[in-house]
Amino acid sequence: MITVLFAAPSLWPEYTEALPAALTGAGLSARIVTETTDPASVDYIVYAPSAPLQDFTPYSGTKAVLSLWAGVERIVGNATLTQPLCRMVDPALTEGMVEWVTGHALRHHLGMDRHIVNPDHIWDPTCPPLARERPVAMLGMGALGSACAAALRAINFPVTGWSRTPKAGCLHGEAGLETVLKDAQIVVTLLPKTPDTENLLRASTLALLPRGAVILNPGRGALIDDADLLAALNSGQVGHATLDVFRSEPLPKDHPFWSHPNVTVTPHIAADTRPASAARVIAENIRRGEAGEPFLHLVDRSRGY
Amino acid sequence: MITVLFAAPSLWPEYTEALPAALTGAGLSARIVTETTDPASVDYIVYAPSAPLQDFTPYSGTKAVLSLWAGVERIVGNATLTQPLCRMVDPALTEGMVEWVTGHALRHHLGMDRHIVNPDHIWDPTCPPLARERPVAMLGMGALGSACAAALRAINFPVTGWSRTPKAGCLHGEAGLETVLKDAQIVVTLLPKTPDTENLLRASTLALLPRGAVILNPGRGALIDDADLLAALNSGQVGHATLDVFRSEPLPKDHPFWSHPNVTVTPHIAADTRPASAARVIAENIRRGEAGEPFLHLVDRSRGY
Repeated sequence: MITVLFAAPSLWPEYTEALPAALTGAGLSARIVTETTDPASVDYIVYAPSAPLQDFTPYSGTKAVLSLWAGVERIVGNATLTQPLCRMVDPALTEGMVEWVTGHALRHHLGMDRHIVNPDHIWDPTCPPLARERPVAMLGMGALGSACAAALRAINFPVTGWSRTPKAGCLHGEAGLETVLKDAQIVVTLLPKTPDTENLLRASTLALLPRGAVILNPGRGALIDDADLLAALNSGQVGHATLDVFRSEPLPKDHPFWSHPNVTVTPHIAADTRPASAARVIAENIRRGEAGEPFLHLVDRSRGY
Repeated sequence: MITVLFAAPSLWPEYTEALPAALTGAGLSARIVTETTDPASVDYIVYAPSAPLQDFTPYSGTKAVLSLWAGVERIVGNATLTQPLCRMVDPALTEGMVEWVTGHALRHHLGMDRHIVNPDHIWDPTCPPLARERPVAMLGMGALGSACAAALRAINFPVTGWSRTPKAGCLHGEAGLETVLKDAQIVVTLLPKTPDTENLLRASTLALLPRGAVILNPGRGALIDDADLLAALNSGQVGHATLDVFRSEPLPKDHPFWSHPNVTVTPHIAADTRPASAARVIAENIRRGEAGEPFLHLVDRSRGY
């Protein structure tokens, strides 16, 4: 009998049915607990950033820590965590991200806001260009960035991918970033948060964009320097920013993003983990651990994701 | 030397360069005129609904009338028009339509409006369902409807197509309409305007929808009974309507659509004819006419499109 510690008590109501069903579906016989007095007996830990668990030392028999989140920056530096750590790569999470990115890219491309809010009832039949005439920069070409790039290309947006490290079919590095930004009318930031990606969009990189470019950030708040973005919005260098993630969430009531006319705040909904499909990913990794197969989505501690 | 009468003077500035370039590109030697004192000498007429030309009788040598518009309802019933009539099926027009339909479907699916207009700065991280859980009805499965259905399916919307007459892979007829409407959370109307399609969406058909469904109409204004739609919006039976086409355009200043909180008006921009690509379609049809090959997009007068 496998023992699984579900270490995110606030999320347990969402997983009460989904996780046992997924484990049974994977052919596993497991006991799920939400707390334990015998840490050494725990085989797997299901983890979320909201989990009170911070000291992994007593979990001496634990074969893996399985994150419910794609982003692991709040746990990857935990020195007590010596067990294998796996990120969540949920197919439903990817679908949600593709929908948010494609939807907001089309919203800005089509200039929808001027029709959604049109108090003077202005009939101005000026057509937008075609998507094929609207270059998009996809900063980050991991599982999520690649899926979004493919969806945008399917409706004809010319997408240039950029990856921090060399990757097939992408630009990379400082020179590559300059190349991709200088033509981009829409920039999507979908990188993990690491010391190398923090403030990737700041005054010097925002200045490379053509005037009036649009920023979509469904990745991590720290990828963008907030003050530099506000300055670029105020000067018109950046035309609009639609942001789903923030350095502090919920976005504080007094943050200038809330009232800036050229900022749209969405409340960290671009890629929500969906319990049914996330539970299947967790169960598959437990099955792999028990069968001695390699874990899926294992975090590389040296890269930080 | 072929003589082409460009019978839409107001559009001539847009085509001054595009049409000669396209004719040359098609290997044709042609003289383009915007008026003529010798109608019998005209080989081809390029036509738009704004054209003053209404009596085609004197154009006795004309081999085809080539519309710059996809919709031909304002010319198809003209008794003096005995020459072959071709609709515009512009690949760029299809692209624009796919972008408008996909963009507004995602806008409503993701509930974007509550983030775009959020004066109270409400942070409510309730996630929308996935597109795969949002059934779409595509009413009209011609060139435009089929292209939009394919794009929506590519991002996982379950799309059911409906066609007035039997067509492979579609529901059709009255019974089919009832089936497709009763599950549809988003309805797209992309039918030609004919006596059979006028007021297709009216009180009795709107009542078939699940409560709160969204209507997208980039097809023809007359497909919807305006008063019945307003009643359905007021009762909550229809959650929102985003309309690009109207019985009278520009939409009159006093029309209740302008100020209804659950109506978005876009100014007939979903599928604009683009001069460069439209001119290539016109040139290709002239080339076909000269080579004795069948015309593309020939209108069937008995169906009306």
